[in-house]
Amino acid sequence: MVSARLEGLRSSLARQDLDFLFVTHLPNIRYLTGFTGSAGVLVVGDGQAVFTTDGRYKEQARDQVQGVPVVVGRQAALLTAAEWLSARRRGKATMGIEAVHMSVSDHERLCSRLGKRFTITAAPPLIEQQRMVKDAAEIALIRQAVLFAAKLFERLLATVRPGIRETRIAAELEYAARQGGCEGMAFDTIIASGSRSALPHGRASDQPIPRRGFVVSDFGVILGGYCSDMTRTFHVGRPDKQARIFYQAVHDAQLAGIEAVRPGVPASEVDRAARHALRSSGWGRYFTHSTGHGVGLEIHEAPRVASGQTELLRPGMVITIEPGAYVPRQWGVRVEDMVVVTEQGCEVLTPTTKKLISL
Amino acid sequence: MVSARLEGLRSSLARQDLDFLFVTHLPNIRYLTGFTGSAGVLVVGDGQAVFTTDGRYKEQARDQVQGVPVVVGRQAALLTAAEWLSARRRGKATMGIEAVHMSVSDHERLCSRLGKRFTITAAPPLIEQQRMVKDAAEIALIRQAVLFAAKLFERLLATVRPGIRETRIAAELEYAARQGGCEGMAFDTIIASGSRSALPHGRASDQPIPRRGFVVSDFGVILGGYCSDMTRTFHVGRPDKQARIFYQAVHDAQLAGIEAVRPGVPASEVDRAARHALRSSGWGRYFTHSTGHGVGLEIHEAPRVASGQTELLRPGMVITIEPGAYVPRQWGVRVEDMVVVTEQGCEVLTPTTKKLISL
Repeated sequence: MVSARLEGLRSSLARQDLDFLFVTHLPNIRYLTGFTGSAGVLVVGDGQAVFTTDGRYKEQARDQVQGVPVVVGRQAALLTAAEWLSARRRGKATMGIEAVHMSVSDHERLCSRLGKRFTITAAPPLIEQQRMVKDAAEIALIRQAVLFAAKLFERLLATVRPGIRETRIAAELEYAARQGGCEGMAFDTIIASGSRSALPHGRASDQPIPRRGFVVSDFGVILGGYCSDMTRTFHVGRPDKQARIFYQAVHDAQLAGIEAVRPGVPASEVDRAARHALRSSGWGRYFTHSTGHGVGLEIHEAPRVASGQTELLRPGMVITIEPGAYVPRQWGVRVEDMVVVTEQGCEVLTPTTKKLISL
Repeated sequence: MVSARLEGLRSSLARQDLDFLFVTHLPNIRYLTGFTGSAGVLVVGDGQAVFTTDGRYKEQARDQVQGVPVVVGRQAALLTAAEWLSARRRGKATMGIEAVHMSVSDHERLCSRLGKRFTITAAPPLIEQQRMVKDAAEIALIRQAVLFAAKLFERLLATVRPGIRETRIAAELEYAARQGGCEGMAFDTIIASGSRSALPHGRASDQPIPRRGFVVSDFGVILGGYCSDMTRTFHVGRPDKQARIFYQAVHDAQLAGIEAVRPGVPASEVDRAARHALRSSGWGRYFTHSTGHGVGLEIHEAPRVASGQTELLRPGMVITIEPGAYVPRQWGVRVEDMVVVTEQGCEVLTPTTKKLISL
């Protein structure tokens, strides 16, 4: 698996006229080598490659890294990799860096170590492009993470009652996740109740659940290295008519987004479809974020599902569809599923009902 | 508090001949403004400043940001900030960026938006230098986080028994942390038992606790925004003589490190003292990482306590002292406290015993 990925990257390098790619983004390194630690550099060239790390990860690198030799240095992995390159390549070379992930100061250190023989250039997101389309093994892992989170949602509902703090709900959720064998949560759990539901990113706070109002719950787990992401908004106490109409508008926009997903369609079209639906029902101006994003080894990865995104959807892409509407200081609703693009359209991975639940 | 910090930064800017500092590192933004969200830019100049964010954080920014005006843009915070600067400054200006934190591609976007009127330069870590010395309010918060974690350790010990998985122990610990009101863990919990104790960064795994052997537990919480960090290594089953000697060597090295902490001493001296002690007992070559690091809003911050670090310790600095020794595939021990530098020497914040506990 891993070696096929490396070969895929080598083909991309050749097309870009790059002699080497200097990979520093850890999820990309994990994708290509299997290494899960937090310090390492992967250098890939035509017919040669190396993974460098420092003493802390010596054992782990030797256990995990597949397909490339491991060099453990006494200095930072970046400098060990630069030395390897200098020794390996006597002539001139063009090397791509991951400009979105490399810091200005690491860039300067790298340039000064490598000297003028190396032309260092910002590479396109070659590995992110590879990662965008998941293989069958990845989709199986993602499916497990999604189903796991859906079960957690059942437990979450059992925890909620007026007066219990948002953080307590998050604590129960995360405990169950850990007990079930998750590596961790994919992002800070959002439990935003009452007027806090109007915060699109309302991390669980000390606020107690009110007797009546919406609760936005947005959470995900990391299982087998892969992330899940789901949002359900439910209502504590009986929702009045306006609340039901508001919820339904977001719900319908989410269905419109899903409906738009199929191969060959630009990602922006999915965003447009969801946004159009919310505009039609009069809540368009309260939809203040984009419709979705890719999910995989990272919780946010390519493609973005947003206005202006020309990336065409392809079978195997896994994205979220998560429109929301937020009326400041009053209330908010968001509904989010993960879907995988198929030959015909898409399969919704999240099994949880989207009917408005009232507790 | 926050406005005094801004004034402190302005003095630093003047000394560096910088007209503006472009602050993108979120903990630095939190330190200077109180904003805890995950998208924002702070621009500080002489007598003027702005915080920019996007629609997702509109409410939160208005609730939290102190001392500077907030501008909510329709584009990324970086571009909104660049526009604000362009409009504000008609003549030439020199602006510092946080080169360690800004990506090469953000740097390119910023340069192209601002044009040639702005000379953009890598600023020294001015805010990190301010943050290195904690004020009384910060030390009080850190103290709370440390004591909280120490109580968790008692619960952890009650959980451990042969056969229970490392991840289960981590789950119980993290649940208790959340129930107690923590924002989260300061880093991935390390529970490394048996031969896994030889991994300096052995995140809790599926491995069951063996009937006999060391268990390294290294964890921290975030409470009130501030991090704690502690490591205790204990022994399951009765330790034999060699295990006791090994543990004592690391324990003594840790005490030697603490002994070396006082104002005016370079951070490297603390590392040297701990390393010297481990060398004397013959385990020096198994001490493969540095002795410690600063802790505050971030789990790893300045100063580094390592060889070559010339930073002089000052009262109010909060650092870890955490030597360890790791014999590959056999065993490892690490002992870690947090200490605050005082006028006379240091105060050990971590109250937990360092005697070898056997369960």
